[in-house]
Amino acid sequence: MRRTITGFSNPTVKLLKSLRDKKHRRREGLFLAEGLRLLTDAREMGRLPQMLVMAQGRDAHPLLAALEADVMGAGGEVLETSEDILAKITGKDNPQAVCGVFAEFDTALSTIARESAPIWLVAQAMRDPGNLGTMLRTGDAVGAGGLILLDDSVDPFSVEAVRASMGAIFTQKLAVARWEEFLPWLRSGAGQLVAASLREAVPYRGAPYAGPCFIMVGNESRGLPEDYEMACDLRVTMPMKGRADSLNAAVAAAVLAYEVVASLED
Amino acid sequence: MRRTITGFSNPTVKLLKSLRDKKHRRREGLFLAEGLRLLTDAREMGRLPQMLVMAQGRDAHPLLAALEADVMGAGGEVLETSEDILAKITGKDNPQAVCGVFAEFDTALSTIARESAPIWLVAQAMRDPGNLGTMLRTGDAVGAGGLILLDDSVDPFSVEAVRASMGAIFTQKLAVARWEEFLPWLRSGAGQLVAASLREAVPYRGAPYAGPCFIMVGNESRGLPEDYEMACDLRVTMPMKGRADSLNAAVAAAVLAYEVVASLED
Repeated sequence: MRRTITGFSNPTVKLLKSLRDKKHRRREGLFLAEGLRLLTDAREMGRLPQMLVMAQGRDAHPLLAALEADVMGAGGEVLETSEDILAKITGKDNPQAVCGVFAEFDTALSTIARESAPIWLVAQAMRDPGNLGTMLRTGDAVGAGGLILLDDSVDPFSVEAVRASMGAIFTQKLAVARWEEFLPWLRSGAGQLVAASLREAVPYRGAPYAGPCFIMVGNESRGLPEDYEMACDLRVTMPMKGRADSLNAAVAAAVLAYEVVASLED
Repeated sequence: MRRTITGFSNPTVKLLKSLRDKKHRRREGLFLAEGLRLLTDAREMGRLPQMLVMAQGRDAHPLLAALEADVMGAGGEVLETSEDILAKITGKDNPQAVCGVFAEFDTALSTIARESAPIWLVAQAMRDPGNLGTMLRTGDAVGAGGLILLDDSVDPFSVEAVRASMGAIFTQKLAVARWEEFLPWLRSGAGQLVAASLREAVPYRGAPYAGPCFIMVGNESRGLPEDYEMACDLRVTMPMKGRADSLNAAVAAAVLAYEVVASLED
């Protein structure tokens, strides 16, 4: 179905705008993703939006035409609207010319096939959606299987997290679990749990990494709880040559992940 | 001097609040930094705020008492105010109990002593203050000398950048320059310019790094201009195993910097 919407008070506009709030995303089971590149990534991964929202007066593009055709073919809806309304929906002053509304994924731990990838990233009580999206993006780059969010982490389906993931929200698996659920699951199969730590740790370079390797980072202010660290199979230290005693969480995950990639390939 | 301020319309409150805008920071030559830990880092680096702003009813702390004494001793001002007014000044709902007003540093390229550190980070047209602060924080961790911002980068003295730096704004040197100024400066002495690139590049692991090594990353959306890449002494590639063709800029800088640290120490 194809429609044109011109009014700010249109109920669909209100619904789409409400998806900026976690509460409404959860209730509707929907989230927003912006930009032709990201939507094309999703499409090539077999994920089509239920609704495609496009700016009137946008430039024609073969990938956009392909996307439109696929969404229509799958029984989805295509909306045309003004750039002002798109800006209101996405909360961005200069919105991308197209955005899509997707059904949220199943984030149960049981959807993770651990043997399908040599690396998995794990984040505990992550607060910053930019860090979360960046971890997904890094996971894509290092060939990780996905990201497991522990305890009370920020919502991975927020516009900010999806944006920072640069499309990796569609290529990486995503699971949400409490530690009490995660640890027994991890121990029910193969998997090495690794964290950066100052407690009984070995240098991160040359450490005995083994796949599937689960690289865990902690909350941005508090780091990992001590018992989480002590439950790890391997604790590693990274050089900290200055006054700071920690790295940004997404940075620490990336430096470790690239080391694990190199180590597993040797 | 010590004062207590209770009114939102007090001119000092208005001045402090205005420092959230780059225009006002530049006019006043001042910036804000929050939190006892960060202010203590600054003090231990010999940087005292001109003005210290503290919440009434804060917990006593020996480091805060030391800071207060030093600021008073140096002829600075100590202000006490309500938590509400602190929240208004810093733009944060739950503000830290203390913040300081610092004179902006001299960011001329001529203040950089390149031989004083084995690594320097360089960011071109960086747009995100969180990425900028994260690069300063990473620089501190890897023992870099500082961060050089090229072309139209976001302001390093914004509250967000200072916050993300976790105090490294005070431990890292900071320079701001245009490419046309940076390249001749670089070539006037020792210095290897390195960037992640897909053009005639070698694998980033085992590449022939040499100090002082200048690690350059590009704008978050566009990457580095081609001529900047071609002016590098060394172009390196990092594995990209997924669909994405790039990493977050601060992540790329960190992964490269840790590789350079390890390489220079071998």
